[in-house]
Amino acid sequence: MLSLFLNTDGSAPCELPGGVYHPAQARLEAEPIKAIIAKVADNDDPDFRTRAILIKEQRSELVKHHLWVLWTDYFKPPHFEKYPELHTLVNEATKLAGASGTKGELDAAKADQLLAKIDEIARIFAETKKA
Amino acid sequence: MLSLFLNTDGSAPCELPGGVYHPAQARLEAEPIKAIIAKVADNDDPDFRTRAILIKEQRSELVKHHLWVLWTDYFKPPHFEKYPELHTLVNEATKLAGASGTKGELDAAKADQLLAKIDEIARIFAETKKA
Amino acid sequence: MLSLFLNTDGSAPCELPGGVYHPAQARLEAEPIKAIIAKVADNDDPDFRTRAILIKEQRSELVKHHLWVLWTDYFKPPHFEKYPELHTLVNEATKLAGASGTKGELDAAKADQLLAKIDEIARIFAETKKA
Amino acid sequence: MLSLFLNTDGSAPCELPGGVYHPAQARLEAEPIKAIIAKVADNDDPDFRTRAILIKEQRSELVKHHLWVLWTDYFKPPHFEKYPELHTLVNEATKLAGASGTKGELDAAKADQLLAKIDEIARIFAETKKA
Amino acid sequence: MLSLFLNTDGSAPCELPGGVYHPAQARLEAEPIKAIIAKVADNDDPDFRTRAILIKEQRSELVKHHLWVLWTDYFKPPHFEKYPELHTLVNEATKLAGASGTKGELDAAKADQLLAKIDEIARIFAETKKA
Amino acid sequence: MLSLFLNTDGSAPCELPGGVYHPAQARLEAEPIKAIIAKVADNDDPDFRTRAILIKEQRSELVKHHLWVLWTDYFKPPHFEKYPELHTLVNEATKLAGASGTKGELDAAKADQLLAKIDEIARIFAETKKA
Repeated sequence: MLSLFLNTDGSAPCELPGGVYHPAQARLEAEPIKAIIAKVADNDDPDFRTRAILIKEQRSELVKHHLWVLWTDYFKPPHFEKYPELHTLVNEATKLAGASGTKGELDAAKADQLLAKIDEIARIFAETKKA
Repeated sequence: MLSLFLNTDGSAPCELPGGVYHPAQARLEAEPIKAIIAKVADNDDPDFRTRAILIKEQRSELVKHHLWVLWTDYFKPPHFEKYPELHTLVNEATKLAGASGTKGELDAAKADQLLAKIDEIARIFAETKKA
Repeated sequence: MLSLFLNTDGSAPCELPGGVYHPAQARLEAEPIKAIIAKVADNDDPDFRTRAILIKEQRSELVKHHLWVLWTDYFKPPHFEKYPELHTLVNEATKLAGASGTKGELDAAKADQLLAKIDEIARIFAETKKA
Repeated sequence: MLSLFLNTDGSAPCELPGGVYHPAQARLEAEPIKAIIAKVADNDDPDFRTRAILIKEQRSELVKHHLWVLWTDYFKPPHFEKYPELHTLVNEATKLAGASGTKGELDAAKADQLLAKIDEIARIFAETKKA
Repeated sequence: MLSLFLNTDGSAPCELPGGVYHPAQARLEAEPIKAIIAKVADNDDPDFRTRAILIKEQRSELVKHHLWVLWTDYFKPPHFEKYPELHTLVNEATKLAGASGTKGELDAAKADQLLAKIDEIARIFAETKKA
Repeated sequence: MLSLFLNTDGSAPCELPGGVYHPAQARLEAEPIKAIIAKVADNDDPDFRTRAILIKEQRSELVKHHLWVLWTDYFKPPHFEKYPELHTLVNEATKLAGASGTKGELDAAKADQLLAKIDEIARIFAETKKA
């Protein structure tokens, strides 16, 4: 029903996937960050803001984790050769989910930039799946 | 680009989502379990099997976790009224990812049943999104 | 000395328990939530409140987790048949520990309701142990 | 209903408990270790043994964690003065749950010794509660 | 290049280290706590303080964990005999990273005391390595 | 006493470090992997091997995590400009700790290559500290 095109299919028979690789995972965690930042903008209750920051911290960490897994476990040297911007792209995306991005700030623009970077990575990911 | 229809959109302005809710998350973890069981069937190397069991354990736990989050945080009383089978369906799916299912066994049929249950839950989830 | 009546005793010889099942685990995590909410009510120091919310978040997550494990790994179809309210009871208890309950709010009444639900589950659990 | 006598009651109003303290928590994790070792003794299936070792590893780690929390967060200098054997007792118990104990071995005697040590700690804990 | 003198070298051939043991691990987590407390002293922004408390909580937990691992897995009975203050030293250090120390407070003196205790433990650790 | 040169010192006053950054962290986790592989080479006991694979899996994951944190949170665009090999170096190191490296295999050469890569990263790290 869902067509997720997991990359476990194409792996060698002797190799075990240690995780799941799909940019949707990073996006699923990044979308609530954007929603949380929007809600906090309209709400001055300190307890509410505390919980928002707490959840945002966890979601941002998960975004970073999913992108790291993609970068290390999914993308291979031929991908980095074909897409020379890929290293910088993933590095910038993870920074946008870090202390200078959605983790450390409540800035809607940072959340949008993070989502845009994830979509760029997803586009490359989709191309490598077709190849 | 990806259309994930996160449920954070419809929440009340004063409520903060504590997690992400989408059946795709459970499916993303369940698909590798099926792949791992297939690989182990063709491989008698004990170290290989050990690592397969280890990964299968982690994936199965994540499947359970994602289904639990859906059941508690996404589905609301009106959903359970409209879909009276929903409790049993989620309970059976989590059991299929547990000690008597993919966690405790290397049985391809159990992995298929788990994926089928997740797809049933995903179908109900999709209907509740349209409503 | 402690009489915990763990359910590992009754399991089939070929089955391995993947966890521990006892409602005391959920109660042990829920009681501090009640205590935390009481302390925060008397204290306006923002740093104190921040830490209280942080701990309450973790305890609430653990309450949910312990209840989920009971629901999936301990309770079996005959239990759900004998106690038709059990699904709803566990679902409501986990919701009371979630974003609309003790996780998202600082409401002493929610903590009391959560403890009451855990006690109801514990009563059913104790009955199934005698059976 | 359950009488767990949590130590959150007696804490100063300005102090927040960062966790739960009760020897029952360590015992709840140690009992399945004993059960697992018994089951493995009767079962030569390598996949079964692998999963048993995996679960035993996790349970042992949790036993250690709960004992550490008791030692650091619950027991105070007057307790260590009154019970001069307490440091050694907790240290030995955690070692019995470690690499030279239930974590690293499948030795039923080690599991029994671990349970006995936990019961000794529980007896001291109960006395400090009455004091 | 780095000379970390890991204790895995000296273990018996049949024993597997379940973790890493080096006081540097506790220090690596304790130094940022000191830095965070200093930054918070100069900053009244509530969102900034929330995140500082959140990070401080995580770092303090890691300090405790690394010290516990040392106490249980590295130090052996002959060490406790030779250094009779060692139990109290590690216990006090973990308390200084707990609810009454850097976890529960924003007190630079507590962070300094914690670092001093870690250095005392590191000194004993270094001596046991030479022995 | 220990001179760890944490990078928290040089951060802007308004920025909070979300973690610790030092290549020693990755090395501390990678050294036991090498030791474990050596011990397994001399030991055919299946239970021993199972536990070795389990620990190796956890250590390898931690190596990856520490390297990812360095890559995202410590290294900045000027570093990547000055050391154009840095992206590939960190990517290869994390792959050496992954499914095709120490996580998926019991190959002493892979552990040595991983340690060598970590030392290369540590050398660059040390240079950036002096700059």
